[in-house]
Amino acid sequence: MRNWLPLHGYQSYQRIQRTGLFRASPPVILAAGFLGLILMGTLLLSLPMASRNGISATNAFFMATSAVTVTGLTSVEPAIAFTHFGQIVLMTLVQLGGLGFVTFAVVSAIMLGKKMSLTHQALALEALNQTSVSKIQKTAFSVFKLSITIELIMATILTLWWWRDYPLITAIYRAIFHAITSFNNAGFSLFPNSLNQFLGDPVTVLVITASIILGGIGFSVLGDISQKKRWSSLLTYTKVIIMGTLALNLTGFVVIWALEFNNPHTLANLPWHSQALAAWMQSVTSRTAGFVTLDITQLHDSSTLIIMLLMFIGGGSLSTASGIKIGTFIILLAAVYSYIRHRKEVVLFKRSVSSDTIQKSLALLLANSALIFLGVLILTTLEELPFISILFEVVSAVSTTGMSRDLTPQLSTASQLVLTLLMFAGRLGPLTLIYSLATQQRSRVRYPETEFQVG
Amino acid sequence: MRNWLPLHGYQSYQRIQRTGLFRASPPVILAAGFLGLILMGTLLLSLPMASRNGISATNAFFMATSAVTVTGLTSVEPAIAFTHFGQIVLMTLVQLGGLGFVTFAVVSAIMLGKKMSLTHQALALEALNQTSVSKIQKTAFSVFKLSITIELIMATILTLWWWRDYPLITAIYRAIFHAITSFNNAGFSLFPNSLNQFLGDPVTVLVITASIILGGIGFSVLGDISQKKRWSSLLTYTKVIIMGTLALNLTGFVVIWALEFNNPHTLANLPWHSQALAAWMQSVTSRTAGFVTLDITQLHDSSTLIIMLLMFIGGGSLSTASGIKIGTFIILLAAVYSYIRHRKEVVLFKRSVSSDTIQKSLALLLANSALIFLGVLILTTLEELPFISILFEVVSAVSTTGMSRDLTPQLSTASQLVLTLLMFAGRLGPLTLIYSLATQQRSRVRYPETEFQVG
Ligand SMILES: [K+]
Ligand SMILES: [K+]
Repeated sequence: MRNWLPLHGYQSYQRIQRTGLFRASPPVILAAGFLGLILMGTLLLSLPMASRNGISATNAFFMATSAVTVTGLTSVEPAIAFTHFGQIVLMTLVQLGGLGFVTFAVVSAIMLGKKMSLTHQALALEALNQTSVSKIQKTAFSVFKLSITIELIMATILTLWWWRDYPLITAIYRAIFHAITSFNNAGFSLFPNSLNQFLGDPVTVLVITASIILGGIGFSVLGDISQKKRWSSLLTYTKVIIMGTLALNLTGFVVIWALEFNNPHTLANLPWHSQALAAWMQSVTSRTAGFVTLDITQLHDSSTLIIMLLMFIGGGSLSTASGIKIGTFIILLAAVYSYIRHRKEVVLFKRSVSSDTIQKSLALLLANSALIFLGVLILTTLEELPFISILFEVVSAVSTTGMSRDLTPQLSTASQLVLTLLMFAGRLGPLTLIYSLATQQRSRVRYPETEFQVG
Repeated sequence: MRNWLPLHGYQSYQRIQRTGLFRASPPVILAAGFLGLILMGTLLLSLPMASRNGISATNAFFMATSAVTVTGLTSVEPAIAFTHFGQIVLMTLVQLGGLGFVTFAVVSAIMLGKKMSLTHQALALEALNQTSVSKIQKTAFSVFKLSITIELIMATILTLWWWRDYPLITAIYRAIFHAITSFNNAGFSLFPNSLNQFLGDPVTVLVITASIILGGIGFSVLGDISQKKRWSSLLTYTKVIIMGTLALNLTGFVVIWALEFNNPHTLANLPWHSQALAAWMQSVTSRTAGFVTLDITQLHDSSTLIIMLLMFIGGGSLSTASGIKIGTFIILLAAVYSYIRHRKEVVLFKRSVSSDTIQKSLALLLANSALIFLGVLILTTLEELPFISILFEVVSAVSTTGMSRDLTPQLSTASQLVLTLLMFAGRLGPLTLIYSLATQQRSRVRYPETEFQVG
């Protein structure tokens, strides 16, 4: 029996299937929910009151998909094309998509005082990848509480800071918008050229990056921290993810700074503290948030490569970030290290990791790589554009990062539809993968082992 | 106890270590052997009699490394820069590097009627990744016999065919050179623009591709076929590799043909049978042989991407081809498929695959990817060249394919040295990886299992 899904959850799920309450498979329900949100968003964004001069159905669909999948790729500029109504629709789609309609469903159920239905339980269990149904209820509620708290704090600080330059109402409006898009790692901005004007502004950069990191580190980590308070009593998983996040962000910071130090189009002409802030922002945002303060088209190819790796890895599990996830990345590294060190089991912080977890990590790595490969293959046949720009765009879509080398608006409708599919698959992919597993037949046959040469 | 190395071999190895006969670790000896060959080759190619107008030490070193690692990247044209002596040195380096100095050492030992020393046994065992020492002796001898037989047959056909256009001596000389370089998947050619002039020549294309496939499928497969003769009695491994090779080559053939069909710089202006031959040649050669009949710089980015995937996968284990190897690729696919199908074990042709094999495959995948990532990172900082050309060059070097978008001669000395390191690591990498394992400390501590979220 595989242990990737807790017995408890799996049995509930089987019971649901047997009682016929729940015939559609969970990934179908999840995908349908996201699709429903996207279609509703498309409809609302198509309304005359949503845009200043009207936008095409393709653009509305693209922007809605980008919002629900918390990507942030833009075929039209939200600040220019949309009215306040359109912008509020956009940020609502981001909030619903980011925290996940599943979490919302669970939280609503708890708030309404209803005992969660088994359908909801199984749904929440798979979506949040948690280990017990009762735990999920607590988690779901703390997801909601934590998110709103963090977003409120960030919005307050940004309001006070931006009030110096904007009328209070404008400051509040923009602060809420950016608190939501940054915490949900959704990269939309209401300023021209994303956050370029805040390049050297320490308060804005540090608040936005803090919000990105908190949204992208994963709710189980946040939950564990908020319960335990002390480092020594944290779960191994929490410690590993915190250290991994820190390591990735700092590595990105140093490497991007070093590689762009002499680039007159990015860092070279800035004072050192602005260089530091810009490199930090670029490193943090690459882990699938997608805001930019630098001109992405002017970065060296070497930094662009580093950024693509950061996008591919992404944030923590159970977070508003996407990518293969930092936990997956760490497991893959640990597996290779253990193999080289000749260990029978994969060991991480003196704990062994199950072979199922390793296979799941491998599956995620290959699924995301295959998605990127296919995306690039299709886009290179559809467009005559530099390979690196297409690769960057596809990695950005699959990891739902939303940075672009100014490519998105230039693309044909066909290519934009391919990108919507990639964003959708990139955001739901891991979930659907896990989900599909539960619905497959298990084999009871044992096969004899074969010797197989590799490498 | 891990089962990746047979107990038998491991015990011999331990005995050797204990008796102090064999203090250097096997990967060091292997690497040193290759390095020795490369340095000897550099010296010989630097001799005035080797080149028409003299070549730089860097070029001699680059060409020797390219030959010993059977890559075929060229900083100078072998047909133009080298004399006959230089060309013979080159093909000798290819033959020694391709069949492996290990195999040669083992075969020599057998031929000399000496009982193999334990040192040789352990060395051969690790290098050929076989399961018993007595089996290795047989294998080594059949490697030698098979290689020479196949090369002689190919050389004879090519001689007869090319005799129509060249004097007999020239035909024999070129036939031997190309029989050796094609069977060893080393991609050097004595004609201008590689094999471009044979674009529509069915005999040359089919002989060269057959030679490439036979050299690149792996000696255990060839050995099994030559012993069993009948499909039904072949090993599972043999069947899988044959079918996988066929599937990859045919897929590459169809996809490249389809993507280049309308390209006036490659296939569009050719008759259909030449299109077919050119697409077939391009598909087969991409699995790390490196000959070309088409102009690589003129291929669509989409076909270039496909070719990079084929290069990355490469040929069979225990062959003159490199890459992660087709067996590794199949195991990775099988692991993902089994995971999705909810199977506890990875099943391939009704045989289960050990978790060690899967971890090894994962290690190979990540090691090669990391090598490519680092190579591209360094080259993009050193050169101002199109990203796709650099990526192609690096994948070609790491997989020891040797195709280039005409980049190699343009590169700075520093970049060329990076390429030599990549070729060296790409060819030895998997071997050294396996080898290093045996020299590491085993841990006897059992750690408790931890839950770890991925994806
Ligand atoms: K994003
Ligand atoms: K080659």
